[in-house]
Amino acid sequence: TKNYQICLLPGDGIGPEIIAEGVKVLDAVGAKYDTAFAYTEALLGGCAIDATGTALPDETLRVAEASDAVLLAAVGGPKWDTTDPAKPRPEQGLLGIRKALGLYTNLRPVQIFAALADASTLKPEIVDGVDMMIVRELTGGLYFGRRERFYGEEGCGTHGAAGQRAYDTLEYREYEVERIARQAFEAARKRRNKVTSVDKANVLETSRMWREIVHRIGDEEYPDVELEDLLVDNTAMQLINRPADFDVVVTENMFGDILSDEAAQITGSLGMLASASLGDGTALYEPSHGSAPDIAGKGIANPLAQILSVEMMLRYSFDMGEAADDIRRAVTAVLDEGWRTGDIKGPDTPADKVVGTVAMGDLVVERL
Amino acid sequence: TKNYQICLLPGDGIGPEIIAEGVKVLDAVGAKYDTAFAYTEALLGGCAIDATGTALPDETLRVAEASDAVLLAAVGGPKWDTTDPAKPRPEQGLLGIRKALGLYTNLRPVQIFAALADASTLKPEIVDGVDMMIVRELTGGLYFGRRERFYGEEGCGTHGAAGQRAYDTLEYREYEVERIARQAFEAARKRRNKVTSVDKANVLETSRMWREIVHRIGDEEYPDVELEDLLVDNTAMQLINRPADFDVVVTENMFGDILSDEAAQITGSLGMLASASLGDGTALYEPSHGSAPDIAGKGIANPLAQILSVEMMLRYSFDMGEAADDIRRAVTAVLDEGWRTGDIKGPDTPADKVVGTVAMGDLVVERL
Ligand SMILES: CC(C)[C@H](C(=O)O)[C@@H](O)C(=O)O
Ligand SMILES: CC(C)[C@H](C(=O)O)[C@@H](O)C(=O)O
Repeated sequence: TKNYQICLLPGDGIGPEIIAEGVKVLDAVGAKYDTAFAYTEALLGGCAIDATGTALPDETLRVAEASDAVLLAAVGGPKWDTTDPAKPRPEQGLLGIRKALGLYTNLRPVQIFAALADASTLKPEIVDGVDMMIVRELTGGLYFGRRERFYGEEGCGTHGAAGQRAYDTLEYREYEVERIARQAFEAARKRRNKVTSVDKANVLETSRMWREIVHRIGDEEYPDVELEDLLVDNTAMQLINRPADFDVVVTENMFGDILSDEAAQITGSLGMLASASLGDGTALYEPSHGSAPDIAGKGIANPLAQILSVEMMLRYSFDMGEAADDIRRAVTAVLDEGWRTGDIKGPDTPADKVVGTVAMGDLVVERL
Repeated sequence: TKNYQICLLPGDGIGPEIIAEGVKVLDAVGAKYDTAFAYTEALLGGCAIDATGTALPDETLRVAEASDAVLLAAVGGPKWDTTDPAKPRPEQGLLGIRKALGLYTNLRPVQIFAALADASTLKPEIVDGVDMMIVRELTGGLYFGRRERFYGEEGCGTHGAAGQRAYDTLEYREYEVERIARQAFEAARKRRNKVTSVDKANVLETSRMWREIVHRIGDEEYPDVELEDLLVDNTAMQLINRPADFDVVVTENMFGDILSDEAAQITGSLGMLASASLGDGTALYEPSHGSAPDIAGKGIANPLAQILSVEMMLRYSFDMGEAADDIRRAVTAVLDEGWRTGDIKGPDTPADKVVGTVAMGDLVVERL
């Protein structure tokens, strides 16, 4: 029997409901593959702010670091929304744990389950065959650069007014670009061998450096992988125009935030997409969607993205590819049989095929 | 007779071909409305680099400043692509003239001509009724902040390697946010009275300041206009999910670059979209598309976005709303009659309805 220690971070909103289904699936897989998963729950985000005053308590970080993998559900909600720099915000927990665990690679696969192809707002012939992997740099750029606000004084400021100003810094170092480029090329080798590197080299100095480094790594270490550059604005267009053409898309943190959400929406079923955040130590797995406070506590949230984040955990942290394939097959079967949660039901879904969070988790477990 | 002085900037690629059609339309409108347009041509972008070594020659700026409006076609092309900070780049001409003329407001209307509704890769019921105005801040943010690259030395750098690093600065001042917010609220009052302000306030300090200022201006000066905030990543999704819900979208420079191109692509006919860049003096009008070097010189480029940028010029610089309406009606009629350039032809377009650049310009002029 293998033993793995999992840190659970239910977070806010629908988080506690969906993470329970992820655990259910992990337990079922563990029983089948002679692997024991032990869990320690910890606080992150809004619930951590309420309990401790900070979005990422030291204790949470200690538990995460001591674990073999972290399973996160979602953080945030209107309760904690604020623009006051002095107040804690749930996102600080997410950003803090990414930085503290050194999770510089965010992998966001974008695929369409055949049964849900019609959920897309794009025409079926356009989304047919969409299968890309967004590789987002996750611990650099605007997210972690120096930022400040200056509250101007009466009579100061360029326009003679009491002028505030603020800045954020987009900063990258060579080794940060090198290592994320390697992740993208490695991913491409296991896929269709093509990398699209996204930047804004016609404006940003960081993008010009990014482009040079990605090409050097490509030329020197991955001459077998096709590499193209695409400007971020053009990428935002091409994702809608010809999404099926993309294989691996690699980009810096902020562009990756925007483009990965755009790409996710192209599938029309955000409730089905998971992500992995990897570094050199413990990795973290989470759904691509948020904490959906509006439906929290109702038992109707879709647990499938959380369950698919467990699939990614098995693949990337525990090298359990077969078990991961089992989960994907089980989810596909449940969808093919017509089972739906409220968010992914169509106009033709019969009422008795619409199930809640727990029932959906049970359906997947039954098919494992 | 009224007299207006227009600065023409044909630029690169298809620029010279399409701007000629814009001029043709201006002349036709001028004749009808007793207005004389006089033109002075100047160099901007790649052609300016070739002729003078710089993308924005002083002479060009002088001509532009002395004119009542600037009509730009497009700049750039692979010939001038470089990541070498020491070499001039065509985009510097565009960015330079925006800054020098103080063109802080970029208006990008996104609408769908009924005859071209099927060109979208989105389902017809999703794009039906799309009619939004993207208001992009154009002279601040990452585009104009301090930027630098440091070429590391052997033995230096965090990882003991010869580490380069680079940074760009996202900076905003209070008055910059105030004035673009007012532009958005004013635009909304002439439309459906709703503003969506896009930021990344859960991460960026500039976004938190942006959000506070936009709300203050809204509360104090435009209490009649509905105001909502949307995070940039969520906006990238909602533009695909429910594009018809947006009225006015206001955002900072880089987010505006990405989102306005995404919104443009939703229509499926980028060759039909124009933009206006306004400041306190001479304004500039240009198509939303690029210089399309691959089809330059072939006489097949679509001149309609350029012609629609003339429409915007008449509306915003010369208060000639009736003449502007004429142009829009003429373009609509030409499309309704089935005339197409190569980029907007459909699978069912008969070959004899596909026309070149000059013929398309003539068709519009005939219907004026
Ligand atoms: C919540 C937010 C800070 C976060 C981000 O911007 O990275 C989220 O949007 C994501 O993509 O994981
Ligand atoms: C050419 C480039 C510098 C420019 C920009 O990013 O502003 C273009 O994409 C635009 O949107 O006008």
